[in-house]
Amino acid sequence: MLDNVGKSKPIGIVGLGLIGGSLGLDLQSLGWKVNGLVNRNTSVKRAKERSLATEISTDPQILSNCCLVILALPLEKLLNPSSELINALPQTAVITDVGSVKEPVLKVWGKLHPRFIGSHPMAGTEKFGIEAGEKNLFKNRPWISTPNKESNLEALETIHKLALSLNSNWITTTCKNHDQAVALISHVPVIISAALLRTAGKESNSNLLALSKELASTGFADTTRIGGGNPELGKAMAATNKKEILKVFSSYRLNLDHLEKLIRNEQWDELKKELEETKDLRTSFTRN
Amino acid sequence: MLDNVGKSKPIGIVGLGLIGGSLGLDLQSLGWKVNGLVNRNTSVKRAKERSLATEISTDPQILSNCCLVILALPLEKLLNPSSELINALPQTAVITDVGSVKEPVLKVWGKLHPRFIGSHPMAGTEKFGIEAGEKNLFKNRPWISTPNKESNLEALETIHKLALSLNSNWITTTCKNHDQAVALISHVPVIISAALLRTAGKESNSNLLALSKELASTGFADTTRIGGGNPELGKAMAATNKKEILKVFSSYRLNLDHLEKLIRNEQWDELKKELEETKDLRTSFTRN
Repeated sequence: MLDNVGKSKPIGIVGLGLIGGSLGLDLQSLGWKVNGLVNRNTSVKRAKERSLATEISTDPQILSNCCLVILALPLEKLLNPSSELINALPQTAVITDVGSVKEPVLKVWGKLHPRFIGSHPMAGTEKFGIEAGEKNLFKNRPWISTPNKESNLEALETIHKLALSLNSNWITTTCKNHDQAVALISHVPVIISAALLRTAGKESNSNLLALSKELASTGFADTTRIGGGNPELGKAMAATNKKEILKVFSSYRLNLDHLEKLIRNEQWDELKKELEETKDLRTSFTRN
Repeated sequence: MLDNVGKSKPIGIVGLGLIGGSLGLDLQSLGWKVNGLVNRNTSVKRAKERSLATEISTDPQILSNCCLVILALPLEKLLNPSSELINALPQTAVITDVGSVKEPVLKVWGKLHPRFIGSHPMAGTEKFGIEAGEKNLFKNRPWISTPNKESNLEALETIHKLALSLNSNWITTTCKNHDQAVALISHVPVIISAALLRTAGKESNSNLLALSKELASTGFADTTRIGGGNPELGKAMAATNKKEILKVFSSYRLNLDHLEKLIRNEQWDELKKELEETKDLRTSFTRN
């Protein structure tokens, strides 16, 4: 559809934060009229100054003639949509979201709209809010879509074209696979990284604490980067993907136990072998 | 001493890998004659091509007229020095090392030489070996020295001047404080990061494994950077700093347990509060 409608109808974006604002900038560059819905008058003003969308309002009716609506809301709001928002979505439009977990989103939105397709464009910076949107955020980044048996295939093809037009790498998978994978590569890392920061911060020897702060270098900064990220997002990930996170956690513990045991038992050659394997593993996970 | 001798005597460097080679380059830039000792003829050739030292040999006698000798050896070799090396060190010279743990080094070297001072210049890249040395590696980086009651104060002052001449930030502390701090900010992070890689790599669902590899992004890459580092170094850190590492480990586990419990009990507001604290903590650890 995306290219068939001749761009005569606008694309709606609900929320103009990092993802929504970046989508607004890119879609306008591609020649689309973009209608942005935000929840505060101050956001309308700033989003207009930044040209994040063509028209911007706090009134959900701005979505009424859109061919496609992208729900770029924080997870909590996405999972508890207002009736004003739901009622303003055209039944003929394709609806998608950008949430970082998919099973709970599908559970809610699969019932709310016949042409809903779950999406997760995996792109980001450390910024958030109305100042965060930037051009080309999605270029060469994965855009995961999680259709199921009930999904409308024409709607899916629209989202496919949307992702391709933003130069994203299109991936389709199941909700479950998606949520398990992000628990492993994103959500659990936040918690193990935060636990390291907490360990460092709780040091009761003040000399040692001061020295540690002085010596902490790029290695510590890298390992703790995502544990020192956006608290609201960390909480939302945990709250919406609890089951998969706890599953990965129990596996992580076994692996931590194993490495600690090698150290306790002074099995240095085995430890070196393990570290050789993890070195190779990292290459296979970060070659993209 | 360093500036008093008028640079009439050379500085010796044992090992011309990342740290030794970088020291050789910088010290020559400062006008010093540098005598490098390496253990293989192929290393002599390549180190000469790279001008890592003024004179380079596999014969320990190259150290015989040095005013200062820097032992830039891997930990294992540093802790098990050959008698040829020990006998070649002038009794009048100041001796220091660059090892990343200090208590075991002092235990060995405190007895071997009357003017030994333990050092740990905290600088590095991912490279190692004869190709790794680079200029200005130590600039604005911490140079930790760990004198004790038996340390020769004139020798300590020489190392102080050495560090300042390389534009390092001079820190003195006890062996114990040093080893505890590096366990916390460097050694344990290697293991928790490696455990995450091991968790990811052991996934038995091949679809999920492939998807995880495709989705792994900067967050995963950062969290696992040091767990995918030099296996030999990781093993040497663990083998030489076991006691402090295990101590930090038990504290880390309590913190991990705490965060996991908040998730299991769905205490989302408490989790958010914790993540706000770790966000602030990270700032205090990485402001340098």
